Order: sequence, then structure tokens, then C-alpha cells
Amino acid sequence: MDFSNGAAYIDGKFMSVGEARIPMTHLGYRRSDATYDVVGVRDGNFFRLDEHISRFRASMNALRMSPTESDEDICRILHRIVALSGLHDAYVAMDCIRALPPIGAPRHSAFAPCYIACYAVPWISIASPEQLERGFHMIIAETLRISRRSVDPKVKNFHWGDLTRGHFEAYDRGSDIAVLLDEDGFVTEGPGFNVFVVRDGKVITPRNGVLHGITRRSVIELCDDLKIPVSETDITAQQLLEADEIFTSTTAGGIMPVSRINDRILGNDRPGPISQKLFGQFWERRAQGWHATPVHYELEREDGQS
Amino acid sequence: MDFSNGAAYIDGKFMSVGEARIPMTHLGYRRSDATYDVVGVRDGNFFRLDEHISRFRASMNALRMSPTESDEDICRILHRIVALSGLHDAYVAMDCIRALPPIGAPRHSAFAPCYIACYAVPWISIASPEQLERGFHMIIAETLRISRRSVDPKVKNFHWGDLTRGHFEAYDRGSDIAVLLDEDGFVTEGPGFNVFVVRDGKVITPRNGVLHGITRRSVIELCDDLKIPVSETDITAQQLLEADEIFTSTTAGGIMPVSRINDRILGNDRPGPISQKLFGQFWERRAQGWHATPVHYELEREDGQS
Repeated sequence: MDFSNGAAYIDGKFMSVGEARIPMTHLGYRRSDATYDVVGVRDGNFFRLDEHISRFRASMNALRMSPTESDEDICRILHRIVALSGLHDAYVAMDCIRALPPIGAPRHSAFAPCYIACYAVPWISIASPEQLERGFHMIIAETLRISRRSVDPKVKNFHWGDLTRGHFEAYDRGSDIAVLLDEDGFVTEGPGFNVFVVRDGKVITPRNGVLHGITRRSVIELCDDLKIPVSETDITAQQLLEADEIFTSTTAGGIMPVSRINDRILGNDRPGPISQKLFGQFWERRAQGWHATPVHYELEREDGQS
Repeated sequence: MDFSNGAAYIDGKFMSVGEARIPMTHLGYRRSDATYDVVGVRDGNFFRLDEHISRFRASMNALRMSPTESDEDICRILHRIVALSGLHDAYVAMDCIRALPPIGAPRHSAFAPCYIACYAVPWISIASPEQLERGFHMIIAETLRISRRSVDPKVKNFHWGDLTRGHFEAYDRGSDIAVLLDEDGFVTEGPGFNVFVVRDGKVITPRNGVLHGITRRSVIELCDDLKIPVSETDITAQQLLEADEIFTSTTAGGIMPVSRINDRILGNDRPGPISQKLFGQFWERRAQGWHATPVHYELEREDGQS
């Protein structure tokens, strides 16, 4: 098999990522009845692997999904697909997908089995090197974030219609990314990232209506370590517009500074000092093995289907 | 090829439904960046085929999706997959799926091509014969419908997390189905169906925050024909709870009466007279060729890939 574009696992079988396909009749696609998580690999190390798997399990439990794989199985699968791919910098996704109720059973998700599907592909960053250097240009979208009274954002999900619509708004306004407000006017998150505001040397991030990102958690830990005051709170659009600095966080990119919000230029149109400090510390610590789990590349040589 | 379980088409190729799989990396799955429609076939006739294709095209346009297939192509594909399946009673789905931006392009849906995927499988009804006879037991869910300020319900989509959560609430409360309210407390829709309330001989249905169902439209036409007053309006939970009759409508089931709402039994715990009249007229007219397009079964004998 050719794993040069990545490796995958679906419901007991390993395969190349090009073969990783799911039935278009399954509820995981047709009703977005699925949950997922993504863990990064840099320089041959997973970052906070156990925490990603724990969050993935919590998401599955919230959706009443009980695939056959244990957390230990999932851990082993993730190691194996990265090993098969041979990648040392990888984007590693784990999904739990609802299939279909058996014929004759009621047409209800409660009766449908779930299965695990994972893949590892070359590292993806949602920010280009140029964007990282100059900072993202961000807009506040007109589209509102899906309410947590409808879909729980803490259960990582593929309900991206609002985020995609916001991303199109950014595109139409010549910007890079969008952040969405909730129905009460508070800042939530954007397509694939959490957001942070720096004002008067203090860092704040939305407390409600957002994914509790693992990189978000890492930023909070870094701030604590560096004695930068940090808190989770409600943030209004106005506070975002009046920020000294803004930055975003995600597995697929780490810490990504923002240099423009709507029509306003922040600082000198480049990443601000606290954003840069956190960015630098984040990657420096990771290079030193912070929360790192070395990939078991020797698994590549195993026979059989695990 | 074995089409006994159904036939499918994906991006230019015909196949059995068992082979109809989509890449798990595509945005259509990973971000639910897709739209769809479903048309029914009964006794060898599509019902309101052109209207389903028109709505599908409007949904694609709203999401800025431009697959290579024209409306005429889609029509021909749908005839062909039903013909290949040999089915005379079929559930026929048409999806438009966002793939991935090409390597090197910005990671934005605007740069990703879209493709058409369709399948025909044996007719599915969301109501069992027993449920149709006794009427659905319905609850008003605690979960709110995703706001139209986040995702437009008129653009048929797979953002079913709220609907699935509501469906689980129904399951936990020993009921069949759930209807969801919007953030202002007005009745919207349930998993896969529109809802109608009958009170004092008048029929009303929610005007906002709902899919403009083709079967919903058919009910409105039937009411007009039968001189039953019908209107689209805001409906409160209280109005639903005080209804004389309630019924639902969907492609996958037609008109489906409700006999219980929360703890209340409607009428004599069986479908009410206006619901039954509309149910009877709906199927009687369809048997007479109402809005029918005969399937071109002779397409089955064609060679090549259309």
C-alpha cells in the first residue's frame, strides 16, 4: 500500500488515506451524527495525546456513542497510522461515526452502531507562513455561532455551516478569518480556532459557547507560567474591537496572531508583543518535549491488522 | 453490478449503493459543507421531481456550489439510478458535496470544487404502519432548533445535531418524535418533517425557521382545494399543546398524524378527522398521477456512463 499521502484506519482496517471513504448513507455524514478530535504531531511527537483522546471519549459519551475500541486501542491506532505514514509532522484526526440502524429496527440513532475512523496526513496549518508573520486579518461575522442550546460546542462536531458562512464573509471582505458572536452578542470562536484578547497586559478568552481547545488550555498554562494574568470571561464585540492584541489558538497552527480586526489595524499592523512572546514560548517548549509523546514508529513493522 | 439494494451516482460514475462512499477528508463530511434533497418514487412515479431539483439548485446557489451537472443532467441521473435499481417505490437522495481546495490553494471552501452524489434505495417511511394507524406520540424538545441566523433551514442541510438530540429526548420520554422550538419560543420543525396544527377547523404551519417542504407545499395546496382554511404563521408551544389535531409532513412518509403531544392525548388517541382527510386525499391523488413524472426505466438498458 502507498502511504505517502497518509494512512488511515476505519472500523478495524488500516489503509492509505486515499482509500479512507465512508458510506454516503451513514448517519455520520447524512445527519452529521459524528464527533471527532484532532491531535498534532511535530518532530515525531504527539502533543497532549492523552488529553485529546480523553476529550474524544467525553464527546462520544455525550452523544451516546460506544464504539468497540477502548481509549488504549485508539491510542495504539493513532501511533500505528502515523508510523505507517512515516510522517514526523502530521495532522491526525480521530472520528466516531454513527452508521445506520439495522433493517427492521426503529429509524433512530439510539439503534445504530458507531465506529472509529482515523487518519494521519502531512501537517496542516490554517495559517500560511505569510499570515503568521504579518498576523491574520479578522472580521466579526454577521452570521451567529450555533447556540449551545442547540448543539454543544464542547462536543467537537462537524456543524460548520455557520463557521463556513462566516469564513465566506471574511473572504468577501478581503479578510483572512472570521470570529462569530453568540445570540447575546458575546464573542465565541471562529472556524477551527479559539480567540484571545489582550488588553492592558491581561489576557482573556471566551468562557461560554466555545470548544475547550487543547491549545487554548496550553495558552492558559503558558500565561500562568509567565505570570501574565489570564481569565475566561464573557467578551463583547466592543472589547474585541478595542483590544491591544488579538490572537487565536488551534491544534492545526498553534498560536496565530491577529493584526487587523474589521477596519482597525492593531499596533503596528504586526503581531503584538504578548502574542509573540506566547508564540515563541509555545514552540520553544514543544521543541523541548513539553507534553510530548514520541510516536512508536516501530509499529510500522508489525504484521496483521492490529 | 448488484443493484438489488439500490443504485448510486458519484461525480460521473454509476455504482451500486454499497459502493457509494465519500472520502472522509472531504469538507462535505468534515464540515458538513454539503446540501441535499430527497424525492420520492411511488408506483414508478417521481413526485414533484422538477420542484425538488429546483430547490436543490437554490440550495447549491445559496452555498455557492457549482457542480458540473446541469439541472437536466441531475434529472437524467435520478431517472437512471432508479431505473438501474429497478425499484418502483424508492427514496432518492441527491447531494452536492464540497471536496477540498487543491494543494497550495488557501484552505477556504471558496477554492474547493463541488460534486454531485445521488442514490436510490427502497422506499423509507419515517413512520411505521403502526405509528401511521395510531398516530405519532410527539414531545416538545428542550433542545432548541439551530437558529436561522446561524444556518438557513431553507437550504436543506445535514446539521441535524439539534434534531438528533431532540429525537433522543423523545426516546428517553417514551415518545416517537420531537418538535423543536426556536429561540423565541415558536414551533419550528422536527427531524425530517414539517408540522401542522389544526384548531377550530383551521390549519396552520410555522412560517419561519423551517424548511419549505415540498410535502408541506402539497398539504397547503390540498387544503386550498378542499376549502380548508390554511395559513403560515408563528405558532407558540401553547398553541401546539392546545391543538385539536397535529400532523407532520415529509417526503419520506407523506402526511403523518400525531395522536399525543407531551402528556396530552389528542381527540380519541387516534388521527383526527382533518388529518385523516388530508392523508387520504394525498395518497388518492398521488395514485391518480398528481404531480407525477414516470420513471424512465428504459434508461437501464443504456450503455456507458451517461
